[in-house]
Amino acid sequence: MKGGFCPFCYGNESKTPPEVLAYRPSKNGGPPAERDSPGWNLRVVPNKFPALGIEGGLNRQAEGMFDKMNGIGAHEVIIETPEHEKTLATLPDKRVEDVFWAFRDRILDLKQDKRFKYILIFKNHGEPAGASLEHPHSQLIALPILPKQVIEELEGSKQYYVYKERCVFCDIIRQELENPIRVVSENNDFVTLEPYAPRFPFETWVLPKRHESSFENSPTHVYESLAKAVKLLLQKADRVLDNPSYNLVIHSSPVQDPSSDHFHWHIEFMPKLTKTAGFEWGTGFYINPTPPEEAARFLREADVSQPGPPPQAQQPVHA
Amino acid sequence: MKGGFCPFCYGNESKTPPEVLAYRPSKNGGPPAERDSPGWNLRVVPNKFPALGIEGGLNRQAEGMFDKMNGIGAHEVIIETPEHEKTLATLPDKRVEDVFWAFRDRILDLKQDKRFKYILIFKNHGEPAGASLEHPHSQLIALPILPKQVIEELEGSKQYYVYKERCVFCDIIRQELENPIRVVSENNDFVTLEPYAPRFPFETWVLPKRHESSFENSPTHVYESLAKAVKLLLQKADRVLDNPSYNLVIHSSPVQDPSSDHFHWHIEFMPKLTKTAGFEWGTGFYINPTPPEEAARFLREADVSQPGPPPQAQQPVHA
Repeated sequence: MKGGFCPFCYGNESKTPPEVLAYRPSKNGGPPAERDSPGWNLRVVPNKFPALGIEGGLNRQAEGMFDKMNGIGAHEVIIETPEHEKTLATLPDKRVEDVFWAFRDRILDLKQDKRFKYILIFKNHGEPAGASLEHPHSQLIALPILPKQVIEELEGSKQYYVYKERCVFCDIIRQELENPIRVVSENNDFVTLEPYAPRFPFETWVLPKRHESSFENSPTHVYESLAKAVKLLLQKADRVLDNPSYNLVIHSSPVQDPSSDHFHWHIEFMPKLTKTAGFEWGTGFYINPTPPEEAARFLREADVSQPGPPPQAQQPVHA
Repeated sequence: MKGGFCPFCYGNESKTPPEVLAYRPSKNGGPPAERDSPGWNLRVVPNKFPALGIEGGLNRQAEGMFDKMNGIGAHEVIIETPEHEKTLATLPDKRVEDVFWAFRDRILDLKQDKRFKYILIFKNHGEPAGASLEHPHSQLIALPILPKQVIEELEGSKQYYVYKERCVFCDIIRQELENPIRVVSENNDFVTLEPYAPRFPFETWVLPKRHESSFENSPTHVYESLAKAVKLLLQKADRVLDNPSYNLVIHSSPVQDPSSDHFHWHIEFMPKLTKTAGFEWGTGFYINPTPPEEAARFLREADVSQPGPPPQAQQPVHA
């Protein structure tokens, strides 16, 4: 670590709120280490500076012509590994898989609290992408209302379904695999591709091939494939874009909804290469100088099994 | 300037596309200087690396299940002053006013092209806010379609109007002036305030007190007050936030629409103090650690007429 104290490293377990989940291997056949002590492979703790508080009611009320309510919810940190210098791209496959199991475990636990309408899981990697701590971690926020962005995505896919009686994401997967110019990689269960009109250079989605609306309701065998797909993408991005900062967001159905035919959970990966500026704030449109076909080709051709110089991706220029 | 060549400085007029507008004072009673030569106070040129092209048709078409069209539009740069080191906060009032007159002149010219449905004017100041050149400038983009963000704002204000038969912005101004805890300043024609639920720390809006839906249709006497209001805000922000990078966006009615009772043009000022990260991308919600009442107080109390140490604004922390 670059000097300084890290609350997510071994020995500093008392510097975070008490853990709500940890994966601890048993020691030489003996019992695993105690709670809030070293010896874990992965640890989930409440955020010490939560965006939302777990106690109390929403207390919706007016303030003159405005409306307000309390920020009720859960805000947890998934400490992905005790190894400060590792990343999801350099952890062993099984450790990456554990991260996704931890996401699932926490969602299944939190969704029992019926106040939570949506559970968002995301990762900010690197300071330009909003990470305040360097140690590998993801975040979970459980919300008492459906976010604007989620409503838009649900309504959009619902509209498509009403019109076509097919899932729009299933249609995208089918079309993109037929002529795979925007496909980065695929395995048995997942396809990794650049969306047709990406907002950002090298924006990449990882989608399950079989329709499923919720991340946490996926058949258990897919988490291994998911870990492989995400790790491969991050390795390729590290190589082509020289270890970029990035945001990674799981898009999944609202946790209290029954499984749906129109929504299809997936992961959106957004490396931080351009700046959101006046045009984007004023329009909601995004200027992306890198065609998705070109980004896909760079990522597809990046051979992460071989050491050697990375393929030359032209750095996008923000005009 | 920090070394290097600047295409927006005197003598480099040939390094930009030919000017479409310039304000040139007459020289000693003689004629003003020639086009594309020095001697201007303000100069508008097409962007050398435009996001949209002016020629051709939209050519809307399908590509499999997707839709595409050409990026037709205008992209211009308003070079606000020949003085490389100045800013809108340090230019004389009259020069700031000229900038708003130039916006108006360009909109009135471009809206004659009926292909353009929306004209967005914005300013990126500072590299973190997306500015690629340091020399003071704003940008104009004329679009053949209404942006998503604009549609949302128009529909929201329309819904309010249908329900109340009053403009929501007029209502906000009235309520905020009654108990001015979020008001930064006001003059005869404009009020500068923090919105009730700002997305960003120190997000600030400048609104005309009298209802008007379009920036360019404002009565001509208000541009002087507007220049004063915006300059004062930028001076205060420089003082409280130590010369922040920022985005500034004019929100105005679609240029081909008749004037409306429900929309109310205004300026949104967003200093770049936090990072848009996974939570924001995943939800469309924004975590803002600075209450608007506190930001307003800091800006209100910043005395820009006196030299001396700035008021201590606590830097917002992104958790």
